[in-house]
Amino acid sequence: MAEGLFITFEGGEGSGKSTQLKLFAEYLKQTGYDVIITREPGGTDVGKEIRRLLVEGNKDKFDEITEALLFYADRRINLTKVVWPALAEGKIVLSDRFNDSTLAYQYYGSGKFSDTRIMDTLYQVIAGDFKPDLTFLLDIDVKTGLSRSFKKAEEMANKELRFEQASLDFHERLRNGYLTMAKADPNRFRVINANQDISTVSQNLIATWNNFEKENRK
Amino acid sequence: MAEGLFITFEGGEGSGKSTQLKLFAEYLKQTGYDVIITREPGGTDVGKEIRRLLVEGNKDKFDEITEALLFYADRRINLTKVVWPALAEGKIVLSDRFNDSTLAYQYYGSGKFSDTRIMDTLYQVIAGDFKPDLTFLLDIDVKTGLSRSFKKAEEMANKELRFEQASLDFHERLRNGYLTMAKADPNRFRVINANQDISTVSQNLIATWNNFEKENRK
Repeated sequence: MAEGLFITFEGGEGSGKSTQLKLFAEYLKQTGYDVIITREPGGTDVGKEIRRLLVEGNKDKFDEITEALLFYADRRINLTKVVWPALAEGKIVLSDRFNDSTLAYQYYGSGKFSDTRIMDTLYQVIAGDFKPDLTFLLDIDVKTGLSRSFKKAEEMANKELRFEQASLDFHERLRNGYLTMAKADPNRFRVINANQDISTVSQNLIATWNNFEKENRK
Repeated sequence: MAEGLFITFEGGEGSGKSTQLKLFAEYLKQTGYDVIITREPGGTDVGKEIRRLLVEGNKDKFDEITEALLFYADRRINLTKVVWPALAEGKIVLSDRFNDSTLAYQYYGSGKFSDTRIMDTLYQVIAGDFKPDLTFLLDIDVKTGLSRSFKKAEEMANKELRFEQASLDFHERLRNGYLTMAKADPNRFRVINANQDISTVSQNLIATWNNFEKENRK
């Protein structure tokens, strides 16, 4: 089982992706895997500067095409500097968000693109035929997720509220977009119910992983 | 003659583009035109942050695809926030660099792309069929240009040396790339000999402009 594996964590605001990713990374390490963690946007030093451009400030400071270009620039850096080198060394790479986030937020959520052509084009430019091996979609009721997210932001005096400020409709479209993508690609996606408490979600996620491993990594 | 006009200034390092652009802007204003000036990268506040990512630091900090994405993100911001609104108001917009710079540096210069497909794709994404009305290519002998550029950088303790550091071959390919593009699109390009002193170059440029105006803007 020496070959690397690329696993992405996806979900809306307050879905607990980042917490679950950390718990899962701990589990994998205990099982003896060599694991590295990255995130989008901002998985690298240069990426962090791009991330800052993307998540801080007014949501009208640039349009959705600019936003997409910046996300794909960050993604390219993350792939070339972090993900691909680690996979080549046989590691398991866990990424907090990846390409599905762009589709969920910029296509399904914002509704400003009439199709996914621009994002598909940009993905092809930066990644070719490369895809995640497995994607955990942490699915949560929109209001529950947003209330978690606002609570956390308040505690942390968080400035990264550019996306949370968008309308409730936006977040509903985003959630449905994720579910649509998951349905269209059941081999890659595993949908995890994220409405429950942290340890229940983590247990479900680990059980789902063990099934995936049995089926795909003999 | 109320409709706007988009004029770009292109050329290698030390070609005097920025100086000539300013002199030309003064001339146009004296002639009664409403003129605005922009630049790439960094024609806007957000663009300035992208510009900083692009021009400072080590030239291996990200690859050419990432670089292209960042240039096109900056270009999109500049088009949507500066160029298009000004053209809609009938102004003449002068831009210090535009898309030909990306082709000259990233395709002809770096030689890392086997064709212009990625850049053409990205341009289509950000600009559709929009093109400059006129492009001044300030053509200068590579060694003369670089020596000017290094001298200026030394005087200003300039940190923006990421591109000047590249090899002499790079700058020769860049220059030839520009000349190839100019030859392929003589309607848009006007090649100006930039080896001469500032006021001679400026006079030639203004004469060229007056001919262009007579031919195209009756």
